[in-house]
Amino acid sequence: MTRIWFNEVVTRDGFQSEGRFIPTEAKVSLVDALAHCGYAKIEVTSFTSPHAIPMLRDAQEVMARIRRVPGVEYTVLVPNMRGAERALDSSADELNLVMSISETHNLANLRMSRDRSFVALTDVIRAVAGRVPINVSLSTAFGCPMEGEVPQEEVLRWAGRFAALGVRGITICDTTGMAHPGQVNRMVEALQRRFSGFQLTLHFHDTRGMGLANVLAAVQGGIRRFDGSLGGLGGCPYAPGASGNISSEDAIHMLGAMGYDTGLDLDKLLPIARTLPQLVGHEVPGQLGKAGPIGRLHPVPAAVADLRKGLAA
Amino acid sequence: MTRIWFNEVVTRDGFQSEGRFIPTEAKVSLVDALAHCGYAKIEVTSFTSPHAIPMLRDAQEVMARIRRVPGVEYTVLVPNMRGAERALDSSADELNLVMSISETHNLANLRMSRDRSFVALTDVIRAVAGRVPINVSLSTAFGCPMEGEVPQEEVLRWAGRFAALGVRGITICDTTGMAHPGQVNRMVEALQRRFSGFQLTLHFHDTRGMGLANVLAAVQGGIRRFDGSLGGLGGCPYAPGASGNISSEDAIHMLGAMGYDTGLDLDKLLPIARTLPQLVGHEVPGQLGKAGPIGRLHPVPAAVADLRKGLAA
Repeated sequence: MTRIWFNEVVTRDGFQSEGRFIPTEAKVSLVDALAHCGYAKIEVTSFTSPHAIPMLRDAQEVMARIRRVPGVEYTVLVPNMRGAERALDSSADELNLVMSISETHNLANLRMSRDRSFVALTDVIRAVAGRVPINVSLSTAFGCPMEGEVPQEEVLRWAGRFAALGVRGITICDTTGMAHPGQVNRMVEALQRRFSGFQLTLHFHDTRGMGLANVLAAVQGGIRRFDGSLGGLGGCPYAPGASGNISSEDAIHMLGAMGYDTGLDLDKLLPIARTLPQLVGHEVPGQLGKAGPIGRLHPVPAAVADLRKGLAA
Repeated sequence: MTRIWFNEVVTRDGFQSEGRFIPTEAKVSLVDALAHCGYAKIEVTSFTSPHAIPMLRDAQEVMARIRRVPGVEYTVLVPNMRGAERALDSSADELNLVMSISETHNLANLRMSRDRSFVALTDVIRAVAGRVPINVSLSTAFGCPMEGEVPQEEVLRWAGRFAALGVRGITICDTTGMAHPGQVNRMVEALQRRFSGFQLTLHFHDTRGMGLANVLAAVQGGIRRFDGSLGGLGGCPYAPGASGNISSEDAIHMLGAMGYDTGLDLDKLLPIARTLPQLVGHEVPGQLGKAGPIGRLHPVPAAVADLRKGLAA
């Protein structure tokens, strides 16, 4: 069986776009429950300014209170040196740095040019070197909601610059759900050729319904690591009402049905997914919590059972 | 460019599971609007008993009032000889017969065994022969919510029996969203080998989020015809709250982005899709109505434009 690794991002990317503050206690409980389901990594939180993202203002407390499960990597998003220091203080297992491939999106999101982001992140990578592994998430790699098409060569160029700095992993992010399977095929082929020695992760959103089709295309191309968000939480300001990140449980269920070994236990994961609507105060896009896995059978109605008996007689 | 044909089923399969009666006038307007978007076929309604499916009790009136657009085939679902007669009276361009591959599902849905269904449908096919083309939709072909796994050989066997009767087309239906892409690969390979001379259509539901991934797998295997339901309407009683049929607009958008020629005009289709929530009285699963196509760009905020100007200076 081919192994696929999942990185759960619900408490970071998922919660970040929720309107109502989710209590620290609930975040800690959720991370602790998820840690027993078989994830390779959990992106717990983000060490950003509490003014920029009030939802994650309790990053330090959450990291201090979770009970670490051996074998699970607890990673955190880090935008700058200050965030990196706080992340190291919190004993994060990995630092996930971020910048956008689209200049306009980087300006909108991080208020600086890509060149300035790269210089700042280079400083972080050098300062952290040898202490914990670094992952770099490259946003808007399949398209930018303001610029439109993002050339694949640009993605490869920026990934190459970070690879040269010695990061362990690179995550290629379809931040606003603009990727389609044909584009994923081409991207993955180029990535596998140039960065096969790195931990390559694909991060898809389901904004236009193509999330799991893109996962399929990426798996067909040899990708073995995915970000997912429980319940499909993680909407996007450019598409109000649309789906968010790919739903972890839906993606894990699909790959499991296809015979891949995701290491995830759906019997543990689904009851957790089903607690999300109450936690966030609205329905969630993930389907499996509503429909159940394909192996779950429904009882035969009595009238039909009688008909069946009549046939057998 | 490879051509893909779409069959729109929203006014039949989509509406059938809605609770609130949709007025005849609205059905007629919807079919007439859809007819100008580029569909190969529109499954307008079903000639079943008005007691069994009250939503479609106006089948005759709808068929009489729609304005036919040349080049579009207006097909109707037909469960039996009485329905076939009414369908012919209504000048349907095609009759779509139906039975389940799962014995239990056929008993639950049609109150008779598959063998009895086959005899009855054989009579219909012989009676109609030479007047209009016949399509047969085989339900629960990828799994039954009560029986579980459905052997692929059973699907091929029943498809073969209908093929031998001279039907024009066969639709392989994943009635409750149990198919996964690996299974679709295998099914499609077998279908293409045995039934390449027939109009082969795949009918997927998105109950567990795998709908578009299954479309991708089917297209990769050479399938060129799909059923879709606008807005993704068409839920299933076994999965309350879960998604329905695959959303036509989401599937068409994905295949268009990948370079397939679907013949559909999204600029015409999306405004129609966006009328559905009001028509049915609730949000719909289709994503594209909310997010817009990938080509639709968002304005650059003034503050970001200023930053960009600063960089260029």
